[in-house]
Amino acid sequence: MSGRAPLRLAMVGGGPGSFIGPVHRMAAELDGRIRLTAGVFSRDPAKNAQAAADWGVAPDRVYPDHHAMIAAERGRDDGVDLVSVVTPNHLHFDVAAAALKGGLHVISDKPATLNLAQARDLAEIVAASGKRYGLTYTYTGYPMVREAREIVARGDLGAVRKVVVEYSQGWLSRPLEREDNKQASWRSDPSQSGVGGCIGDIGVHAFNIAEFITGRRVERLCADVAAVVPGRDLDDDCNVLLRFEGGARGVLIASQISAGARNGLRISVYGETGGLTWGHEDPNVLNLDWLDGPSQVLHAGSAYLGVGARAVTRLPTGHPEGFIEAFANIYRDFADAILGQGDGRLVPDIAEGVRGMAFVERAVAASRADAGWVFLAAHRVEPGGIMQEGEGR
Amino acid sequence: MSGRAPLRLAMVGGGPGSFIGPVHRMAAELDGRIRLTAGVFSRDPAKNAQAAADWGVAPDRVYPDHHAMIAAERGRDDGVDLVSVVTPNHLHFDVAAAALKGGLHVISDKPATLNLAQARDLAEIVAASGKRYGLTYTYTGYPMVREAREIVARGDLGAVRKVVVEYSQGWLSRPLEREDNKQASWRSDPSQSGVGGCIGDIGVHAFNIAEFITGRRVERLCADVAAVVPGRDLDDDCNVLLRFEGGARGVLIASQISAGARNGLRISVYGETGGLTWGHEDPNVLNLDWLDGPSQVLHAGSAYLGVGARAVTRLPTGHPEGFIEAFANIYRDFADAILGQGDGRLVPDIAEGVRGMAFVERAVAASRADAGWVFLAAHRVEPGGIMQEGEGR
Amino acid sequence: MSGRAPLRLAMVGGGPGSFIGPVHRMAAELDGRIRLTAGVFSRDPAKNAQAAADWGVAPDRVYPDHHAMIAAERGRDDGVDLVSVVTPNHLHFDVAAAALKGGLHVISDKPATLNLAQARDLAEIVAASGKRYGLTYTYTGYPMVREAREIVARGDLGAVRKVVVEYSQGWLSRPLEREDNKQASWRSDPSQSGVGGCIGDIGVHAFNIAEFITGRRVERLCADVAAVVPGRDLDDDCNVLLRFEGGARGVLIASQISAGARNGLRISVYGETGGLTWGHEDPNVLNLDWLDGPSQVLHAGSAYLGVGARAVTRLPTGHPEGFIEAFANIYRDFADAILGQGDGRLVPDIAEGVRGMAFVERAVAASRADAGWVFLAAHRVEPGGIMQEGEGR
Amino acid sequence: MSGRAPLRLAMVGGGPGSFIGPVHRMAAELDGRIRLTAGVFSRDPAKNAQAAADWGVAPDRVYPDHHAMIAAERGRDDGVDLVSVVTPNHLHFDVAAAALKGGLHVISDKPATLNLAQARDLAEIVAASGKRYGLTYTYTGYPMVREAREIVARGDLGAVRKVVVEYSQGWLSRPLEREDNKQASWRSDPSQSGVGGCIGDIGVHAFNIAEFITGRRVERLCADVAAVVPGRDLDDDCNVLLRFEGGARGVLIASQISAGARNGLRISVYGETGGLTWGHEDPNVLNLDWLDGPSQVLHAGSAYLGVGARAVTRLPTGHPEGFIEAFANIYRDFADAILGQGDGRLVPDIAEGVRGMAFVERAVAASRADAGWVFLAAHRVEPGGIMQEGEGR
Repeated sequence: MSGRAPLRLAMVGGGPGSFIGPVHRMAAELDGRIRLTAGVFSRDPAKNAQAAADWGVAPDRVYPDHHAMIAAERGRDDGVDLVSVVTPNHLHFDVAAAALKGGLHVISDKPATLNLAQARDLAEIVAASGKRYGLTYTYTGYPMVREAREIVARGDLGAVRKVVVEYSQGWLSRPLEREDNKQASWRSDPSQSGVGGCIGDIGVHAFNIAEFITGRRVERLCADVAAVVPGRDLDDDCNVLLRFEGGARGVLIASQISAGARNGLRISVYGETGGLTWGHEDPNVLNLDWLDGPSQVLHAGSAYLGVGARAVTRLPTGHPEGFIEAFANIYRDFADAILGQGDGRLVPDIAEGVRGMAFVERAVAASRADAGWVFLAAHRVEPGGIMQEGEGR
Repeated sequence: MSGRAPLRLAMVGGGPGSFIGPVHRMAAELDGRIRLTAGVFSRDPAKNAQAAADWGVAPDRVYPDHHAMIAAERGRDDGVDLVSVVTPNHLHFDVAAAALKGGLHVISDKPATLNLAQARDLAEIVAASGKRYGLTYTYTGYPMVREAREIVARGDLGAVRKVVVEYSQGWLSRPLEREDNKQASWRSDPSQSGVGGCIGDIGVHAFNIAEFITGRRVERLCADVAAVVPGRDLDDDCNVLLRFEGGARGVLIASQISAGARNGLRISVYGETGGLTWGHEDPNVLNLDWLDGPSQVLHAGSAYLGVGARAVTRLPTGHPEGFIEAFANIYRDFADAILGQGDGRLVPDIAEGVRGMAFVERAVAASRADAGWVFLAAHRVEPGGIMQEGEGR
Repeated sequence: MSGRAPLRLAMVGGGPGSFIGPVHRMAAELDGRIRLTAGVFSRDPAKNAQAAADWGVAPDRVYPDHHAMIAAERGRDDGVDLVSVVTPNHLHFDVAAAALKGGLHVISDKPATLNLAQARDLAEIVAASGKRYGLTYTYTGYPMVREAREIVARGDLGAVRKVVVEYSQGWLSRPLEREDNKQASWRSDPSQSGVGGCIGDIGVHAFNIAEFITGRRVERLCADVAAVVPGRDLDDDCNVLLRFEGGARGVLIASQISAGARNGLRISVYGETGGLTWGHEDPNVLNLDWLDGPSQVLHAGSAYLGVGARAVTRLPTGHPEGFIEAFANIYRDFADAILGQGDGRLVPDIAEGVRGMAFVERAVAASRADAGWVFLAAHRVEPGGIMQEGEGR
Repeated sequence: MSGRAPLRLAMVGGGPGSFIGPVHRMAAELDGRIRLTAGVFSRDPAKNAQAAADWGVAPDRVYPDHHAMIAAERGRDDGVDLVSVVTPNHLHFDVAAAALKGGLHVISDKPATLNLAQARDLAEIVAASGKRYGLTYTYTGYPMVREAREIVARGDLGAVRKVVVEYSQGWLSRPLEREDNKQASWRSDPSQSGVGGCIGDIGVHAFNIAEFITGRRVERLCADVAAVVPGRDLDDDCNVLLRFEGGARGVLIASQISAGARNGLRISVYGETGGLTWGHEDPNVLNLDWLDGPSQVLHAGSAYLGVGARAVTRLPTGHPEGFIEAFANIYRDFADAILGQGDGRLVPDIAEGVRGMAFVERAVAASRADAGWVFLAAHRVEPGGIMQEGEGR
């Protein structure tokens, strides 16, 4: 950096009781590029004020709703530069659209919107706005995930042949949504979460990281999406066979009823001459196995890593960085792009948001219809452009 | 044991150049219950004689073919008690059938036969013979796999909800079958290997261990079976969605083109309250993860293990046993059953052989036909009994 | 928290080029309890100004030296509450003493001072000041280290019998101090680092964590402290046999010439009925092994952990937290103690600082004299009280 | 092999109730080079006969004592070629000496003898006999330990600077020797075990593997050897600082009161440019860490390994081999040397036996006398030659 004052951030959502709100705040401020300056943290005025005080936000910059906030901040010389959207899914579209139209950059928690139609609409709004839109697919912020992407792109593994990605959690093994658990409740409620339960909550992460690391789009899928816990409205377990452009095969497993699993995102990518494996519970290493030589273990913070991984590591090797730092890397890249200090091309954008929503809707529908293999999309999705999808079988 | 002389074993196949032949010999003799006494180790007389000398088999008990051997050994007072079948797949049926009809017990390498029809025929021959038939699904011989089975059977995990089993190898990432590699050649040749390549070679192991540990049969499957390496006749990669009796979902991944993978069989079974994971590259531990308490790691050789695991461990905890010992456990159980010192119920039998062949044929056919979900079998397969299968969708 | 404005922090040292300066800033601000408000970041005015701008510190609160800063801040209504000391070792005493005398709380990087005499003097200054003094022995901030301490204190392992602690790095395997490496240079220079090289830089961490987890003081030691790389003035490798009060034996290994090691702090504590192991490169688990039952793996963020570990975890289990978060936990505890919201008893204090300096000086002297076993201290060191040490053999 | 009949082995000791007897039998016979043909398995005639029957030894080749056996077997045309010594320590010398004088090769369990004086005497007997003498330091039989030795010898790590070797068990955490545990009883009895308890039982393994891998002799040591469990006559915990020829430093930790530890032998060797780590509980991998590049993991059975490791692997990579196979590798090398098919230079010999006894006696004596650093030996010990030792400090 070069002595420039931090960008000013407003947050919508994330007040007392939220898991992801404090993560956004810590991540946004970690590197000194962004300072939380305004916000609508809760509909409850007391909670709204408390969050502001806790986080050092001046009382006159705490607002009752996002419309009021956008209007007021636009009128200030020192108004905010960007808005982070940290609400439940069903509010993502409204807040993001209003902020973009109000001339603010937007960084949103995933998924982009409640459904695919909204995502497409938002893509057009982003394109029209001239502002930046970023999506916090956290796992793409890990240095060793970026290293994995570089390794594949460089062709070190040869052509990609197979991808196995698994994201297993166990915390919804019991019907917590009927036990007054806020996190479980909205995730199990179609009106707040959309048509996807587990697949929308964590399956999209698995989908996104598979496309991110391989640099290849999924073209077809064959899905088994189910609600295992009796009485649950949305899926809590999904297993999906994949076919990538270029022919690679894949398997995507996501579950919230894998009892005992914590947050086990894990991906293996196999090419012609070697394979790589990264797992979230030991995120600072990347394992490489070769057809013809010793296995390798790459450690975050090492001088031998590629420029991408080195750019997002704060500490010397052997000093673990974790989830908050990965999250912060996305904020940092986003801030740098706004400041013109980077191209921001690694920040997941609205095209990724559309992809995610398409994946969720397509897999859920195909599984319900027992449709076997279906196309996901015949053509690439480009930000703001016309999107065409292939037809199902 | 109690001072009884060892059983006498004849081996068919397994001479110089074989990988699995020496393993059978070491495994059979490891515990002193069985001694290799006769055999047809190779069609090449010189190799046949060499194998005999190397393994201490008297020259007059080395035979040119299995028919001669069976006839001669029947005529001796000290004739062999059992025959092990260690040939390529297409000879399994002939040797096993002849030996059973000749009044000898048979222990065979997997798969049981070249195809399902042969397996059904063999089941009837076994039933008629009154002799024992065992199949060396090696992985069921590991102490911690048996512990896993006991844990599931005891209900420690609650009802099983999900199974993920993966068996990844990379050694066929290149077309070794065209490079004069004997192991690769016969495995890639339908006339010797049957309709399954990877799925018949290692997919059946994954299938078998999933049924073995869960104690549940697979009822339906949806398969993606493919030959990834150009020009290969048989599959080298397969991904299968599973549905078990009782409703549990599963995913089976088997591959011989996962470059860099060695022999990575790994299975996770999730129930209502916890999950277990066992992996072949660290076979002396069993990992348990619980919804409500600390994870546990069970170590082979420990006093706290169940009777099944303790029965097949030779060394104190912390002293690794491996593949040969697991193999030997199957031989030991088989010998004990012959000697009337055990029920042999954990030794995979011809019913498992039929299951395996049905799985291979059904998955290959369904994948070729792009048939989506198909039934594997509506009813249990019982040894020697009438077998009925459900109809495809 | 309850809506209170953050404490105001001044930092001395840590400007551009520093490794640990940015860590202190990130850690201090992570939880919103503290905001960096003033500082002397560098003697170089340009760098001083740049750091301030980067971190959002107002230009009028950037000072040329710590004396000017303390005077000016005392005169403000919104003056800083605490000072963090982030300079090389030889300046720790002066800055800390001046700040305490100026009525400010002090949190210092380790070691406390340049030598034991300074540490004793500082202990008296702390006692006289009525202000809080904290020392960032980072590793004590990890949740699973605190869990380990609770487990030992609760007697789960029975009486402690043996401790093995190892802290291996490899980065000084080459004489980097002669290659214009700033980090290596001051650490290898007695005038800036004191009499201890490796032992003062990382050996004290190993020593501290051993006492922290076991709750027992080291009474005697037998040290082999050496400079392995030719031409190095200070030690880069040390191996020390330990005897704890109550009789437990121990081994402490610290090295900066263990080529290939990254930052491998690892400790095992064995009691009568079980042992625990924690390692820094996988900090979110704690391994327990028992004489009579399955091993256990405790995961950070789990509900089954003790109150101490749960208090310092920000994320659900399975979401890794790392070095910055551990660092932040010490800042958070320190801030809470200042705010009267906690007793701060887990924040390493000046007594620990004295212990560390005594350990370094005693081990270095004993090794040089080839003195065999020597006493470290016959009596407990109490903050601010009279300290007595036992005599050497 | 080339069709030669197996060598004939007699075993002394190892009958019913022994742990290591069956291991010797399995190991000796595993590769078909050796067949157990005669023996004195127990002083109890019934047990002696039972062992023979279990293992297929003809009744006329079971003897009441080793003198009778040696005399009788010498008189047979098909008499045994070698004797394995599997008794408690105090009988090792007598049996080995008698067999060597009787013209038989000897392979003995460790330690070589009850004390150093006996070991020296045995060295002279070996030299005079013209027969081979081997010592089953099991861990040197592991393929990856041999790989480690090759890596160091080849200079891949640069000059060795530091060695950390730890062998931790927990099974003697309780006074099992007073609970009718046979394994514990003789190990805790000086008349059967010698002056070393833990140090003689497992400390020597750690000592031996450190010298084996590094190819360097220990020159000096500083020992802390203790009986931790109250009332125990022999040590159960030892910590030793080491100095190797050439200047490398080391730490040796051995314990049988590290509660929860199973059989945790683990060694790290650090050179100028990298380090290696091998651990017994995951014996088929060797970890390499480098100052300047990615870490590597070498897997047993891989084509990229050196000739030494490949020579002692029976299975393809990914198929675990364990303790019995490592043991068998020593028997195999020993048999090959007898048969003139190898030089047997990797089989630990009587020189290693003398080293081990010297280490035990020196460390125990030095610790008792609180002597600080003492010399182990000023000159190399050569088999059968004159051995000189340096003087203590």
